[in-house]
Amino acid sequence: MRGAWIIDQGSTDITSAYRITRRLHEEQTPYQYLEVYESPLFGRMLVLDGAVQTTEADEFIYHEMLAHPALCTHPAPRRVLIVGGGDGGALEETLKHPVERATLVEIDEAVVRASRAYLGAIAGDAFDDPRAEVVIGDGLAYVRETAGRFDVVLVDSTDPEGPAAGLFSAEFYAQIARRLEPGGLLAVQSGSAVYQRDLVTMVRRHLRAAFPVVRTYLAPVLAYPGVVWSFTIASLGPDPRAVAPEEIARRSGAWGLRYYTPAAHRAAFDLPPYLRSALEPEP
Amino acid sequence: MRGAWIIDQGSTDITSAYRITRRLHEEQTPYQYLEVYESPLFGRMLVLDGAVQTTEADEFIYHEMLAHPALCTHPAPRRVLIVGGGDGGALEETLKHPVERATLVEIDEAVVRASRAYLGAIAGDAFDDPRAEVVIGDGLAYVRETAGRFDVVLVDSTDPEGPAAGLFSAEFYAQIARRLEPGGLLAVQSGSAVYQRDLVTMVRRHLRAAFPVVRTYLAPVLAYPGVVWSFTIASLGPDPRAVAPEEIARRSGAWGLRYYTPAAHRAAFDLPPYLRSALEPEP
Repeated sequence: MRGAWIIDQGSTDITSAYRITRRLHEEQTPYQYLEVYESPLFGRMLVLDGAVQTTEADEFIYHEMLAHPALCTHPAPRRVLIVGGGDGGALEETLKHPVERATLVEIDEAVVRASRAYLGAIAGDAFDDPRAEVVIGDGLAYVRETAGRFDVVLVDSTDPEGPAAGLFSAEFYAQIARRLEPGGLLAVQSGSAVYQRDLVTMVRRHLRAAFPVVRTYLAPVLAYPGVVWSFTIASLGPDPRAVAPEEIARRSGAWGLRYYTPAAHRAAFDLPPYLRSALEPEP
Repeated sequence: MRGAWIIDQGSTDITSAYRITRRLHEEQTPYQYLEVYESPLFGRMLVLDGAVQTTEADEFIYHEMLAHPALCTHPAPRRVLIVGGGDGGALEETLKHPVERATLVEIDEAVVRASRAYLGAIAGDAFDDPRAEVVIGDGLAYVRETAGRFDVVLVDSTDPEGPAAGLFSAEFYAQIARRLEPGGLLAVQSGSAVYQRDLVTMVRRHLRAAFPVVRTYLAPVLAYPGVVWSFTIASLGPDPRAVAPEEIARRSGAWGLRYYTPAAHRAAFDLPPYLRSALEPEP
């Protein structure tokens, strides 16, 4: 195999490797080892502790599918909190909605700094939007201590090992439920639907302890291990499965999104039978 | 990385590796190098010329999605031809329909032999079904010379390099069109939607020369490079996008399929915008 490769060990039994042409940046931050690579297939790639986090070529799938299903399910989101997501991709998608304020709380300032320096295409102008507020700090502490109330919270975390471990806990989800306005929603990335099924079912169990409606949905994130990725929405009110396609088209139809459409929304929540039985065993 | 791995180089820029516990079989056939491995993640895996062809754990996604969209689009398929598919998986799915005869033409008898010996779970009882006919021979020659007529043809081929090259040609597709009954359909695996876009557009161009209706659709085949896999249906009559969900449920609802459902049929043909523009540029 010609050239240099980075190897992302998705699980003990599967590994993906991507050919890279250049390393643009590396540093040991207080929280993780951060690298930025240039690759022929995915453009620039952000790698944390050896795991691919996001790439220029497929970030739109992940970020559109983390943000828009919850934001389009809420009748009129005004205040949004993003925990993690220091690359700014979820922030950019959120600001396409007519929100008043989007607050991003990222624990590792190096992620924001490296993303702004090397991965500017992911956030676009989001960091300079007057509606955006960036807080460098611990998302758990922020949610525990803030006096703010939110219509929608997005948790854009790394894997549950490392600095993001607490972001998958029942305690954290219960704290978020208390910071949500009535009818508010929480959307989280909940891991590989194929290789992290225990994680998905744990996230669902922890969410069900604090929210009456919990729905897992899927999207193919090309640079993630196994590709078939899960997200889970927990809602105090509206059910994301009940949103009318016309409403999604009305809100997002003019944005030129590259993955999220009314059809993609509906299809994402229609888990195939082999995963429904594994991931949504509850009645 | 502990243990032994097999490495599937999906393209010059991406590679997948799977941990394996045992090699069950290997041989140089007249057409290709054939291996069967046991793996923790996918069960038994069939590997041809170093490329994973099918596995016990995900074959149902590939075979259900190759066979049922075309078979459920045809109003009443009676005679079906399968070119390739020596593992028997497409044959098994075909025989779930009330067909009169399913003819499988596989060029490499070693694929049928090894599949029956080591991968029996993939075909189930299909090879012993009195409606099944297995022909060891060249699919191109068979289609050129047969006096048979078919309602549906499935082309279950390897990659276009090697023995299957001719199975992607305009000439072959035109021959198939002449062997189809009025209103007949052809379904082919048309490569990775992500890493083989040139192949997908070539297949579509070759099909459009012989068929009035050409529709590409997707399914996540977990052990294939890039996972997001494309299939293309070419039809002399009915449009697979126009099949009623109730009709799909009526025909297949009792089979306990693990991927294909009315919702999966509809979603598979709804290409996301970023792929629609790349794969279906025609108006």
